[in-house]
Amino acid sequence: MGEWHTGNPVFVTYVIAVALTVLKVMGQGWMTVYRMTRVGGGYAAPEDLRPGLINKAPDPSQLEVNDYVDRSRRMHRNDLENIPAFWAAGLVFVAVAPPLWLAQGLMYGFVAARAAHAVAYATAQSHEVRATFYTLGSLSVMVMAIYALAAVM
Amino acid sequence: MGEWHTGNPVFVTYVIAVALTVLKVMGQGWMTVYRMTRVGGGYAAPEDLRPGLINKAPDPSQLEVNDYVDRSRRMHRNDLENIPAFWAAGLVFVAVAPPLWLAQGLMYGFVAARAAHAVAYATAQSHEVRATFYTLGSLSVMVMAIYALAAVM
Amino acid sequence: MGEWHTGNPVFVTYVIAVALTVLKVMGQGWMTVYRMTRVGGGYAAPEDLRPGLINKAPDPSQLEVNDYVDRSRRMHRNDLENIPAFWAAGLVFVAVAPPLWLAQGLMYGFVAARAAHAVAYATAQSHEVRATFYTLGSLSVMVMAIYALAAVM
Repeated sequence: MGEWHTGNPVFVTYVIAVALTVLKVMGQGWMTVYRMTRVGGGYAAPEDLRPGLINKAPDPSQLEVNDYVDRSRRMHRNDLENIPAFWAAGLVFVAVAPPLWLAQGLMYGFVAARAAHAVAYATAQSHEVRATFYTLGSLSVMVMAIYALAAVM
Repeated sequence: MGEWHTGNPVFVTYVIAVALTVLKVMGQGWMTVYRMTRVGGGYAAPEDLRPGLINKAPDPSQLEVNDYVDRSRRMHRNDLENIPAFWAAGLVFVAVAPPLWLAQGLMYGFVAARAAHAVAYATAQSHEVRATFYTLGSLSVMVMAIYALAAVM
Repeated sequence: MGEWHTGNPVFVTYVIAVALTVLKVMGQGWMTVYRMTRVGGGYAAPEDLRPGLINKAPDPSQLEVNDYVDRSRRMHRNDLENIPAFWAAGLVFVAVAPPLWLAQGLMYGFVAARAAHAVAYATAQSHEVRATFYTLGSLSVMVMAIYALAAVM
């Protein structure tokens, strides 16, 4: 019998953490869209300079890097460097039946660390603050991977 | 009993959608390789300027950004911002046993939206066209995540 | 009965391959951190120029692209273009109950190909060497996706 069903509270913890982090990643895409629309710039594709509903007054400067928009893209890249690995590590971690307290600590800890990282990055907190939350999230994922590896070896 | 087995038509829908989108992401890497080879440029690594089978007549300009190649890289990045989140959201969505019509609508809808997005991006359609398909794909993923979250809460 | 439980040796193969590749991806983030710290540059965020524990002598040149740091970022991007697709493809591949020898060949083959790719990239081997390992990894993922697709169609 597997561990991946909604009668298993460890699995339910995983479902909640996955759903929240999926919404975080998708929301980051929308933050970039919002920022591009608001400043009317930071576009990535040359064809976005064509006049249309989204861009009523095209100008070549709209293709230049815009820090307000690029900050959201950097946050997105940082998400992609961490969150898909969490989804994968969490899945195999659930499969080896860890104790519930450990699963909740690592998974909700990861969600909280990434939320705090996003706030720190969006508001341009110091490198030390951002690095602390990055580290907490990264360690959670590595612990889950090592735990799963140890359990099957 | 879990939902993740090939006797469950919702899970089979997920397997088909995952397989197709995995091939899309991997194929995007090969599109970049094809474009780099065809134009003999758009390289990312300085060592690619060494003469060899791939690069018979090296020139420093080969490291400059080439829009033909970079378009494929931007398509790839856009895939990575959307498709892994679909894999994760779809997995937890299947686990909470949604109706088959909803699973097929959201999952095949996502695959169709991303295929249309890729064609629109590759052929440099207007921002509005690309944004429409992006939005459809993004909403499918968010609906799956919210549905799974609601089901376990 | 599903295939995703630790009594299934194909699934155990998947758990090991996922755990190792998760550690690879997270380790790549730490390689970037190590390289940024060692050279005191290659930073991505303007706020990292504030003086603090991490940056005791800020200088605007620290925001310029640094090849030593950027190489680790390019390795990371290449990982993200390949490894999450492996996690997803492997999962649906396991679900259709492939023979153990094939699962071990493709999954451990993928892990070995990506390890070799990382060494080749970090030590700036020729394009041909890097491309060979990239190709082996990419083909493993595509074979798993096609196998799963064929099994459920």
